[in-house]
Amino acid sequence: MAKAKKKAKSASVQLKKTVLKKRASAKKSVAKVELQYTPWHTVPLEDLNPLLQRQFVVGQEIMIARVLLKKGCIVPLHSHHNEQLTYILDGALKFWIDGQEIVVNAGETLCIPANMPHKAEALADTIDLDVFTPPRADWINKTDDYLRKVK
Amino acid sequence: MAKAKKKAKSASVQLKKTVLKKRASAKKSVAKVELQYTPWHTVPLEDLNPLLQRQFVVGQEIMIARVLLKKGCIVPLHSHHNEQLTYILDGALKFWIDGQEIVVNAGETLCIPANMPHKAEALADTIDLDVFTPPRADWINKTDDYLRKVK
Repeated sequence: MAKAKKKAKSASVQLKKTVLKKRASAKKSVAKVELQYTPWHTVPLEDLNPLLQRQFVVGQEIMIARVLLKKGCIVPLHSHHNEQLTYILDGALKFWIDGQEIVVNAGETLCIPANMPHKAEALADTIDLDVFTPPRADWINKTDDYLRKVK
Repeated sequence: MAKAKKKAKSASVQLKKTVLKKRASAKKSVAKVELQYTPWHTVPLEDLNPLLQRQFVVGQEIMIARVLLKKGCIVPLHSHHNEQLTYILDGALKFWIDGQEIVVNAGETLCIPANMPHKAEALADTIDLDVFTPPRADWINKTDDYLRKVK
């Protein structure tokens, strides 16, 4: 009987934990769709490697990132299911993509379809604005090892 | 018999038309997911009203727009199902949104959830970068009358 009581109590604790978890998850998903006012200077600038820094703002289905690359920085060949739109604000990036070499200079954009492999090199110190949909989970979770190797 | 032949021929023509239509549609949808390299200076700058100009690049699920507002330009209260992320590159926009007044200055962002009504006023000559997902069909189809009234 004591064992059955213990089991019932344990099940009740488990249920409470599940409910709390679900509430937290619901709260999180509500928080995600709130209006967000974010000056860039309040967003931590993450050092990925000595030539690469990044900061981003994440919405529900949009992520916008400011990527700062020093001249010579290489973004190794990679691909992702997220559609990408790159707008170079300053400097220049050379892309190897879709069998072509394309230099994207300041004032120019490159719209990269989902799953299209690409590599890039900064031809000068560069401020690159990258927009993704959906947001890059690997950037948020810091599982983007391909960017964290020293080059 | 002649009637049956005619009917069969008509069905065959109809089938061909359907196949051609499907091919055109498939071609269109393939074209949409191609890599797009677009310098902004090649994109027509549309005059919406004497204080408002706009140009945009459209991907599959992303649209990025450069919106140029002269000081005093009013964007009337409106809402849309598209999520919006605004990044002010130069100048300042004052927003009336979500029961608040928020001034977004150069170097600051505002992430506006889908369907949240908002109004804005340019406090200075402003270069505003707007990102949407999905792309704004009303901007593409020029049915955005709320922006085309003189203010």
